[in-house]
Amino acid sequence: VDVDEASHLARMVGDGPPGLVRDLGAIVGREQVLAPAPASYLADEGRQAHRALQGHAEAVVRPGTADEVARVVAWCYANDVPVVPRGGGTGLSGGAVPFGGVVLALERLTAVREFDPLRWRIAVEAGMTTFGLKRLVRESGLVFPPDPGAGEQSQIGGNVSTNAGGPHAFRFGTTGAWVTGLEVVLPPGELVRIGGPVRKDVAGYDLRSLLVGSEGTLGVVTTAWLKLLPAPEAVRVVVGVYPDVASGCDALEAVIGSGLLPAALEYFDGGTLRHVARGFPTPLPDEAGFMVIAEVDGSEQEAARQAVELADVLAEGSVAVFAPEPGRDVDALWRWREGVGLVVTQVHGGRISDDHVVPLERLRDAIAAMEQIGARYGLEAASFGHAGDGNLHAGFLYAPGGLDQVERAEAAALELYPPTLALDGSVAGEHGVGVHKLVQAQEQLGPRRQALQHAIKQVFDPKGLLNPGKKVGPAPGP
Amino acid sequence: VDVDEASHLARMVGDGPPGLVRDLGAIVGREQVLAPAPASYLADEGRQAHRALQGHAEAVVRPGTADEVARVVAWCYANDVPVVPRGGGTGLSGGAVPFGGVVLALERLTAVREFDPLRWRIAVEAGMTTFGLKRLVRESGLVFPPDPGAGEQSQIGGNVSTNAGGPHAFRFGTTGAWVTGLEVVLPPGELVRIGGPVRKDVAGYDLRSLLVGSEGTLGVVTTAWLKLLPAPEAVRVVVGVYPDVASGCDALEAVIGSGLLPAALEYFDGGTLRHVARGFPTPLPDEAGFMVIAEVDGSEQEAARQAVELADVLAEGSVAVFAPEPGRDVDALWRWREGVGLVVTQVHGGRISDDHVVPLERLRDAIAAMEQIGARYGLEAASFGHAGDGNLHAGFLYAPGGLDQVERAEAAALELYPPTLALDGSVAGEHGVGVHKLVQAQEQLGPRRQALQHAIKQVFDPKGLLNPGKKVGPAPGP
Repeated sequence: VDVDEASHLARMVGDGPPGLVRDLGAIVGREQVLAPAPASYLADEGRQAHRALQGHAEAVVRPGTADEVARVVAWCYANDVPVVPRGGGTGLSGGAVPFGGVVLALERLTAVREFDPLRWRIAVEAGMTTFGLKRLVRESGLVFPPDPGAGEQSQIGGNVSTNAGGPHAFRFGTTGAWVTGLEVVLPPGELVRIGGPVRKDVAGYDLRSLLVGSEGTLGVVTTAWLKLLPAPEAVRVVVGVYPDVASGCDALEAVIGSGLLPAALEYFDGGTLRHVARGFPTPLPDEAGFMVIAEVDGSEQEAARQAVELADVLAEGSVAVFAPEPGRDVDALWRWREGVGLVVTQVHGGRISDDHVVPLERLRDAIAAMEQIGARYGLEAASFGHAGDGNLHAGFLYAPGGLDQVERAEAAALELYPPTLALDGSVAGEHGVGVHKLVQAQEQLGPRRQALQHAIKQVFDPKGLLNPGKKVGPAPGP
Repeated sequence: VDVDEASHLARMVGDGPPGLVRDLGAIVGREQVLAPAPASYLADEGRQAHRALQGHAEAVVRPGTADEVARVVAWCYANDVPVVPRGGGTGLSGGAVPFGGVVLALERLTAVREFDPLRWRIAVEAGMTTFGLKRLVRESGLVFPPDPGAGEQSQIGGNVSTNAGGPHAFRFGTTGAWVTGLEVVLPPGELVRIGGPVRKDVAGYDLRSLLVGSEGTLGVVTTAWLKLLPAPEAVRVVVGVYPDVASGCDALEAVIGSGLLPAALEYFDGGTLRHVARGFPTPLPDEAGFMVIAEVDGSEQEAARQAVELADVLAEGSVAVFAPEPGRDVDALWRWREGVGLVVTQVHGGRISDDHVVPLERLRDAIAAMEQIGARYGLEAASFGHAGDGNLHAGFLYAPGGLDQVERAEAAALELYPPTLALDGSVAGEHGVGVHKLVQAQEQLGPRRQALQHAIKQVFDPKGLLNPGKKVGPAPGP
């Protein structure tokens, strides 16, 4: 979003009515209305042109219960005040950045509403963190498979609202695949339950899936009913290292074609490895130009058997294949994985990174396109991501003080979109649309789907006050 | 739907315009317009009050391509003619039964658009049968997990439009979980693609899931992009037989609580076993009052290991536990399973059966409620279904000629709904809403969700011509 667009969004809304702080304070308690809004609630983790997008808001409101959320939305709706729901603020697309109105922070809604470990299910409020949920269910021998990054900060409500993914989405699907029910506040302030603990339900249109990934533009998620799985007895990871993209992508396709069903299948290109190899738990060979990480699970015996098969498949064309010791070494590897994006960003101080998806066999083409664009702009290209899903976190590194580097990185990143669309891909795999990817998402969707989206938005939110301007963009003119 | 309601639905639409057969014939070929409409296209497999719901239509139109589907819809939309999309006609809820307008039969759209076995995906047209798809992918070592009944007749378009399930939905989810993209014809006759081969996509609202399960009321599915899985090396089935509902439900919960992750977990109550035990591939003990079938899979070794564990868990409280030989005996068992509904129906000549879902721990309560209702009405109760999903196909047997039996069975079936809703369940797990369950679905959803549904219907189908009166019911008055 550029500065013009941001000020346009800001102009869409006036200043809040004079009684805002008092009236909302009467609902949630005066100390839970932060006005002026602290800067930490006005940005997310994304940046463009090396600037975090900094929004503005009349106030931050921190309700403590779903009922208070409903009353806050009702007051805002009655008073024409925009509502920007906020989870952990770890998004990368500007979805939680406000341009006026109030920030509705869900962080105090952390209750476990129901937990039935023997039937593999839990209902938690929106503000519970991803890792908080994962730790809780793990104590009962269960797993909640989705594993987006920033698990200590990111919250279930945000994960639902962006349909967050992560490495294990390959076998287990994104967050939405685990949601059986939602409690949401819908305009003009009504608490509605859609689904619940039951695992199947076709009594109505699938409004649950419509809300999942809608980035707070249709309703405010207050509670999610989630399915869980028994934790596997054992997890094994095998790492394959390749000289180049071609041999690495061959290996990826060989894994998929082998009949094995990995839980996760990640890749790292040479531009990434160059900078993160040093922190990798095991020394990597100098020739490392591409790396594949695959995880399998099951009983001890089964996981070990699959790991042997996997190592065999990954060996073809590799310069090294190794299997970290189960337990501590595997944990260390996934911790390393979690930090890759940050490390690569810090190399020169900046990275424009996007979240493209292509069919698996086109991954090599997408990486090649990225490298060519980088070379043309004189920028280092680096990509890594969820290979099994064809999901690249692809970007260009830049030094913020370097000559034109920010501008070149921005221009280069924009050139990645046409190849993605030409490869029958998606411009947004798991990071949402927010405001940063509105133009690209609209190009991908085309006029009919855009029109349907705006009409659906109008059905749920006739005043256009829920997270205005996000996901589907500003309402079309009359 | 009663006779009055059917004639009301019929009155909603006038007779077709005079040029209907000629104009539609010009699009699809005169021989592909069947007028008068053959009776076989005017009913489904469901019945109420021992009568199949018999609809009426101006004509049956059988387009041969997606483009012809779009042109047929465009003509109908321009001429105010209702369009009732039809797959295999194996539904049980009246969703494909027309009340005027034209039946749009998709059965000639059987092409495989893309098949990429090495990347686990296929795109097939709507008219391909479930078994046709399963056989095709099986030849390449893959599986399409959803397995609704009537696989030789049911078609992918119908499975998508009802979000069909089946025994293996327990581990693998219903049809929608496997759909990555849809090509649909949307009013007023536009061919639109939503998603495609990519496995992740949050560029827009999840319109794909909204169309899945919408029973042809929002658009006409012409092609589905589907994910597939590598076939497991081995499949093992273990059967537990119990004296009564309590011990059987204890066993079901013990399986879920054991840490095993079965692919399917089915149950059959005493009222069902009484009639189907004779056809079961293995002799069952006389005390059989409840039966559990659980399937596990994996490598030969892993499947065998899990089967041993499963047998151990299922033994508690059982009168018999046995494991059919992998291969022929397991196939025979699943064939038997497929016929259970039909056999039970034929016992006395009639059965009112519904498709309730409850949380797993409430299965015993739902079965108890059903038995009590049956006793009160002097009718045999029989239920079986997808226990792992808490999905009961529950019904009452009657002799069509018996004194008041049809009426009593209908009344008894209606009494099953309040307990399902009281148990936090759903009135429709996988059979759709159609017309038969409109009242119950609306009660489950409540006024806000009903209003949202009607508004969404209006967005997609402003003239209300797509499968009018189904799923969400007639449009509310002004």
